[in-house]
Amino acid sequence: MPSGELDVVGIGNALVDVLSHADDALIERQGLVKGTMHLVDEERARALYEAMGPGVEISGGSAANTVVGVASFGGRAHYVGKVRDDQLGDVFGHDLRATGVGYDTPRATGGPPTGRCLILVTPDAQRTMSTFLGASVRLGPADVDRALIERGKILYLEGYLFDPPEAQEAFRTAAAIAHAAGRKVALTLSDPFCVERHRAEFRALVENHVDILFANELEICALYQVPSVEAAVPLVRGHCDLAALTRSAKGSLLVQGETVHAVAAHPVSAVVDTTGAGDLYAAGVLYGLSQGLDLPTCGRLGSLAAAEVIAHVGARPMSPLTELADSILP
Amino acid sequence: MPSGELDVVGIGNALVDVLSHADDALIERQGLVKGTMHLVDEERARALYEAMGPGVEISGGSAANTVVGVASFGGRAHYVGKVRDDQLGDVFGHDLRATGVGYDTPRATGGPPTGRCLILVTPDAQRTMSTFLGASVRLGPADVDRALIERGKILYLEGYLFDPPEAQEAFRTAAAIAHAAGRKVALTLSDPFCVERHRAEFRALVENHVDILFANELEICALYQVPSVEAAVPLVRGHCDLAALTRSAKGSLLVQGETVHAVAAHPVSAVVDTTGAGDLYAAGVLYGLSQGLDLPTCGRLGSLAAAEVIAHVGARPMSPLTELADSILP
Repeated sequence: MPSGELDVVGIGNALVDVLSHADDALIERQGLVKGTMHLVDEERARALYEAMGPGVEISGGSAANTVVGVASFGGRAHYVGKVRDDQLGDVFGHDLRATGVGYDTPRATGGPPTGRCLILVTPDAQRTMSTFLGASVRLGPADVDRALIERGKILYLEGYLFDPPEAQEAFRTAAAIAHAAGRKVALTLSDPFCVERHRAEFRALVENHVDILFANELEICALYQVPSVEAAVPLVRGHCDLAALTRSAKGSLLVQGETVHAVAAHPVSAVVDTTGAGDLYAAGVLYGLSQGLDLPTCGRLGSLAAAEVIAHVGARPMSPLTELADSILP
Repeated sequence: MPSGELDVVGIGNALVDVLSHADDALIERQGLVKGTMHLVDEERARALYEAMGPGVEISGGSAANTVVGVASFGGRAHYVGKVRDDQLGDVFGHDLRATGVGYDTPRATGGPPTGRCLILVTPDAQRTMSTFLGASVRLGPADVDRALIERGKILYLEGYLFDPPEAQEAFRTAAAIAHAAGRKVALTLSDPFCVERHRAEFRALVENHVDILFANELEICALYQVPSVEAAVPLVRGHCDLAALTRSAKGSLLVQGETVHAVAAHPVSAVVDTTGAGDLYAAGVLYGLSQGLDLPTCGRLGSLAAAEVIAHVGARPMSPLTELADSILP
């Protein structure tokens, strides 16, 4: 069904972000590690929320941010992830559909509320995240629609999916369907702590099931237990078709077999909030790949999208990426 | 109880804002009038939400924004307004308390959900609001705590309270308590359509019960059915101790008896979103009055707070106003 073909299908934990400015003292008092993601239960989320300043609610979720980015580039994207039938679930669904992303995962009608990610943005623009998974733990293999997965040129999976056991099963089911249909499977390692929690599974996945891997410095070093990206390159190169390794202001490396393309970061006048930088980098690369663009161009689209999202509060683009991309695309 | 004295007690419709960027075409298609507030029922709110782009949820409500501004200046403020026991109600309460505003109005346990204001921000930075009052219509005289009102140097009431009948009663009850305790009563006319709906009541209030009046050009002209602010000045001057008449980029006029102080607008590098401009202007003036500052200084604090809030998305200050005010305060 060529007319029904999709560029990217993303699966992830469906979350609403609660963003708040904070000083380093709050991060310390709460025992958090800056720049990382912590899983918290409902009670801890409540206590942390009470300790936070006033917030802004914006739909989030790593893979959801990415598919929104793909749609903003003009790509056809679909999302799979679980919310509850509550107000934040309404918000999450609206914000996806309003950007043109297909989304029809049945909502949970019982159990925990829609998941949320409490994000403390410090004056250095770093974000520290505490995630209450909520209803997203209810995502399971039954939510994976075979026909949908088969329609996507690329299936994009977030490493965070490995935290809820049912979602991990959904992940494996979807990856198997995509491969059986000759589609590409992409994975982001998501977070260094997430890699620590699931290192063995992630290594096995990368070696056997992942075509396109996204990771930042901390994540790829955690995966291979090496001290630098450079040390990781020879280890990852044999395992996936493509590894996109991001290095913050130093740009990224696109590793494909023996070739390594170094891609510069896109200039930003002022970094306001790094939330979503990796998600939007992935959006640019995935969109480029889905359009058959050459790797350096894919990397530049990734840098462009990351630059847009770190220049403002929130993890989703505020300007249409398709317009910004005009300067880069042939 | 001097130690328990409050600078400002505000009463208003408790709302969560849903802000979204929109073009003029959407405003037209939806039959809205740019720069004004429309009341909508739940069904219409749902339809409009579906037509809107992705949004950002931020606590709002006119008088609530104002008391948050007072607290940000370092003032002691309390708020009275009704939400439901739902997720957006949680958000609303959190965001007030997290800024240091006292808030303990019992939440509705049944009936409509927490009210929301759908705000379309056009490229000219104007905001057009569609309000579903929701649970805020449940605010009634029983929610007005006599001891609380007596503690406030100034009672601040929003004109929007006249839309829900029970809230209108709460308004009258609170004003009577404040006056009996020798406190000042301040009113904002809120919106030209709101003035049209309640002109006779507002005129009677201004003539007999209001000490401090806030209005923008459209509102004061609607109140007196005159073509200009200048024509309104002689009409309003006899009725309240102080009328603060805002004129957007032209600044404001503070009318006190025969004296008129013209206050310049505070410079803004780029106007992003005018939502909350009037609310924060009122915060600066009320804070100044509560501290016994002279009128021109009160006006400058109002201009300063308005300038802060129109330079970013959302109707509440993102920088502590007490720090910004250092350049103005003696």
